[in-house]
Amino acid sequence: MIANGVLIDDEFAEAFPMKATRVIITAQNLQWAYNAAHAATGFATSVIACGCEAGVERELAPEETPDGRPGVAILLFAMSGKELGKQIERRIGQCVLTSPTSAAFAGIDGGEPVALGKNLRFFGDGFQQSKFIGGKRYWRVPVMDGEFLVEETTGIVPAVGGGNFLVLAESQPQALAACEAAIVAMKRVPNVIMPFPGGVVRSGSKVGSKYKALSASTNDAFCPTIRGITRSQLSAEVGSVMEIVIDGLTADDVSAATRAGLDAVIRLGAAAGVRRISAGNYGGKLGKYHFRLREILAS
Amino acid sequence: MIANGVLIDDEFAEAFPMKATRVIITAQNLQWAYNAAHAATGFATSVIACGCEAGVERELAPEETPDGRPGVAILLFAMSGKELGKQIERRIGQCVLTSPTSAAFAGIDGGEPVALGKNLRFFGDGFQQSKFIGGKRYWRVPVMDGEFLVEETTGIVPAVGGGNFLVLAESQPQALAACEAAIVAMKRVPNVIMPFPGGVVRSGSKVGSKYKALSASTNDAFCPTIRGITRSQLSAEVGSVMEIVIDGLTADDVSAATRAGLDAVIRLGAAAGVRRISAGNYGGKLGKYHFRLREILAS
Amino acid sequence: MIANGVLIDDEFAEAFPMKATRVIITAQNLQWAYNAAHAATGFATSVIACGCEAGVERELAPEETPDGRPGVAILLFAMSGKELGKQIERRIGQCVLTSPTSAAFAGIDGGEPVALGKNLRFFGDGFQQSKFIGGKRYWRVPVMDGEFLVEETTGIVPAVGGGNFLVLAESQPQALAACEAAIVAMKRVPNVIMPFPGGVVRSGSKVGSKYKALSASTNDAFCPTIRGITRSQLSAEVGSVMEIVIDGLTADDVSAATRAGLDAVIRLGAAAGVRRISAGNYGGKLGKYHFRLREILAS
Amino acid sequence: MIANGVLIDDEFAEAFPMKATRVIITAQNLQWAYNAAHAATGFATSVIACGCEAGVERELAPEETPDGRPGVAILLFAMSGKELGKQIERRIGQCVLTSPTSAAFAGIDGGEPVALGKNLRFFGDGFQQSKFIGGKRYWRVPVMDGEFLVEETTGIVPAVGGGNFLVLAESQPQALAACEAAIVAMKRVPNVIMPFPGGVVRSGSKVGSKYKALSASTNDAFCPTIRGITRSQLSAEVGSVMEIVIDGLTADDVSAATRAGLDAVIRLGAAAGVRRISAGNYGGKLGKYHFRLREILAS
Repeated sequence: MIANGVLIDDEFAEAFPMKATRVIITAQNLQWAYNAAHAATGFATSVIACGCEAGVERELAPEETPDGRPGVAILLFAMSGKELGKQIERRIGQCVLTSPTSAAFAGIDGGEPVALGKNLRFFGDGFQQSKFIGGKRYWRVPVMDGEFLVEETTGIVPAVGGGNFLVLAESQPQALAACEAAIVAMKRVPNVIMPFPGGVVRSGSKVGSKYKALSASTNDAFCPTIRGITRSQLSAEVGSVMEIVIDGLTADDVSAATRAGLDAVIRLGAAAGVRRISAGNYGGKLGKYHFRLREILAS
Repeated sequence: MIANGVLIDDEFAEAFPMKATRVIITAQNLQWAYNAAHAATGFATSVIACGCEAGVERELAPEETPDGRPGVAILLFAMSGKELGKQIERRIGQCVLTSPTSAAFAGIDGGEPVALGKNLRFFGDGFQQSKFIGGKRYWRVPVMDGEFLVEETTGIVPAVGGGNFLVLAESQPQALAACEAAIVAMKRVPNVIMPFPGGVVRSGSKVGSKYKALSASTNDAFCPTIRGITRSQLSAEVGSVMEIVIDGLTADDVSAATRAGLDAVIRLGAAAGVRRISAGNYGGKLGKYHFRLREILAS
Repeated sequence: MIANGVLIDDEFAEAFPMKATRVIITAQNLQWAYNAAHAATGFATSVIACGCEAGVERELAPEETPDGRPGVAILLFAMSGKELGKQIERRIGQCVLTSPTSAAFAGIDGGEPVALGKNLRFFGDGFQQSKFIGGKRYWRVPVMDGEFLVEETTGIVPAVGGGNFLVLAESQPQALAACEAAIVAMKRVPNVIMPFPGGVVRSGSKVGSKYKALSASTNDAFCPTIRGITRSQLSAEVGSVMEIVIDGLTADDVSAATRAGLDAVIRLGAAAGVRRISAGNYGGKLGKYHFRLREILAS
Repeated sequence: MIANGVLIDDEFAEAFPMKATRVIITAQNLQWAYNAAHAATGFATSVIACGCEAGVERELAPEETPDGRPGVAILLFAMSGKELGKQIERRIGQCVLTSPTSAAFAGIDGGEPVALGKNLRFFGDGFQQSKFIGGKRYWRVPVMDGEFLVEETTGIVPAVGGGNFLVLAESQPQALAACEAAIVAMKRVPNVIMPFPGGVVRSGSKVGSKYKALSASTNDAFCPTIRGITRSQLSAEVGSVMEIVIDGLTADDVSAATRAGLDAVIRLGAAAGVRRISAGNYGGKLGKYHFRLREILAS
């Protein structure tokens, strides 16, 4: 299958069940909401080493936030609800409770309740106060700049992690430009994050390594600089490959984001140096979600 | 002591020995250098819960970076060199190795060498190559977008963590505006970071809590909303308090940053709603570094 | 009428017929689309001194742009189609034609056609080529970085300029914080711009001046620092006043933006230092559009 | 001459005498200083169509600004002091006087004095007040958010406009990446601006046109898409050309910025797709300043 000069591999992304929640962070203005949100979702590119995968989902208008202030929604993903709970408490406690003028609210209705402010409130040393509004409990925790308003819990829901596709282009700047266009499009899709820095990852990995201690290593078949000394899957005109990884609340969300990204890359097409699109999987036996590129494009 | 209408408490900040390093991150352009740097230094406001304290120190011109590309310098601080080493490997591995077009270099000459690319290179699965230039070893690790160029080690040096001062203002927006001005001035001082989101922290703490499991709790003496029910140290006209915490490579660096911040806040003065400046300490017995506000201003 | 502690004056904004168009600017990535858009809509706060009022309306996803690249929509307003035509040609010629990787397209279907690329194409010195796709004519103008793709015309439509409201707060930082929240909300409303820097204007004017050469001067009745020496309309607790001016494609658009802004300010309310909301008019005889605050809030 | 694989043409940039001034804009925080500064220096890429060339020179620390607040310095250039005076008054009046919390100060000591606040003060309708501090006159003009503090005059000095160089690369993304690196380096040089959007211009022109009404047209010799049908100066491997134009207070400033830009581009070199660097001139008879690329590199 060729679209706008771009070869679409007959491949699929293999993704996994995860647990996720959304937290709404508000502040005096958008800049300070982002300061807290970026801190809370930093160092969160991969569950294994970072404890969770997290990112800013989108900006919220004041009328979309519980306290009517400017805000942003963040999504956090982990392999279990328990681990996610730990990460929420630590990250909100270190990066939102601490951040001037901020408040934090549940961003998911329903789901399994998990502590948001439930334990953080104890920071108030007994001076914290409970508010019960519209069936939800909030805590007003006295802090030096006034109060940290925080909802008691947020909801954990099943989610899908590890959707992905690969962009193969003639040169590194062209691969980057295509991925930037994809990310712009994908950020408009609700319920997803692309957890790597700027949304793009360039260090795709394969399972296993010649070093026994390591369980994964560089995906040499897709590394252009060692084309001559490995079983490369890259044709001569491919000079650079980048990947976009997607975590979403549902498989449909991951599909929708994949579709938006693929469309953006294909629209740029061969004229912009894009040669081929592929996807990463482990043969299909590890992850229960399969996102076939050609099916997504046909839908 | 009163300066421009602002009461300067006769107080001191109490700070602690830490270990630190600087890493230089370069990329195709500044945006992507920042993407990697923000990810690598995210969730790093406090050593206890985050493993390290980290932040962007400053932008680097292309002629200041080892590979002549746009870049940024980050600083990372931990309580021991061992813990710092772990954090460097994990954060650079997850957030810079992965980030499109990036490279990572030592930002400290001398110091105790600690692995930067020394172990990350094994991701190359044997395809990595060593370069030895000007007495320094670098690794070229094949990745999908080309190569990850990374220096073998960076240097760990003794450092100082926990410098601070408190800004007491009439209202929350005025406290925030004063802190924003301070941060702008302090970011120009080399060798320091202000590790909290946007550089400011509003949840100052005291040692101890009524809850036995907690070792720290809200600094109720500086919380304006509970003035009436605690032994407050706030006079009636103080409506909001914010703190700026400083980590620096040396005590002189922390002093210089403190001075720059104090100057900026005092210049705004009472006309901008700033009433008082104080500092946080534990009585002086815990931390070996003391930064007396009035001495710093007199120097 | 009092809402969340905020007095809503029984006042109306008086607005005027204008002419407007939308231009879509695309580029290799969003940063460069913004670079061109900000340059093209800079120095455009008031028709009288700047020739037009202009601003970025919103970001566009790649699938919303004619060439499938990241882009932004800008809106330009002038008192006549003729003046608007001049401004389009000059601003697109100086700031988009010149800007790396950019293209420019009509953002209004229908309306009175006005030259977008029709004259700019002559820059191509005869090397320009015409494309006719889907009933629309485009020009491919050779430039050093490749081609400037520009649509032949864009459409001019009737529009409404000068919607506004005033935010009266206790202090300057509080007025600013409330206006920032309003602007965040108003930027989500389609078909409008708030043409002043950052969307806010602090130099409201009255008709006439003690200096005969000047036709307008500071709105002294709303200037807090001269309350004692003029017929002030400010009560003692108002320390700062800011205004948000709105230009929109239709009266409904201006209403919707006004509503979104009022809602955001009122949600913050007296707790955030907002005391009163008013609106500016000339007695109602000059402008044919009247936006009554209380009616908008009741709708 | 070849440097890091890049051919350096034996060419020179031809530049012209201009008049310039610097204005310092401060505000409550950097964001609002930038809002005003970007508005005031928008639509200012070329003197002919925009009235002046203008841009942000650099951020200022609070201790570098007259009122101790965060600020930015802007530079404005025109062909005569008279025209520059007009532009200052109009742009500061429309974009700084109007912008919340802002103040404006002279950024040049000495030079020919030109009105900054001298006429804008009349907006105060007689309520403005004069302050005389340290030999300088300031005006406090009552506005709705408080006061607009503005210095009476700023100084106009001789300057140099039109320094430039051309970056010739294999593809558009590579030309852009090289120019981005150059701009990062050049922004660190004091006393200069690069007036085009994002600092880069892609529509280089030659004198004359086949259309008699036009005095300039596309520099077809450097347009890659029409290589086959014009007397091209581009070899086969050059796919895209971009230019950086520099205005500076002195010829030395323009030289220093050119040098910083050239160095950054050359450091990237052929490995980053950069093939050649050239410069634009009119044969050397029009402009009195000549900036020879090879001399600048040898200095």
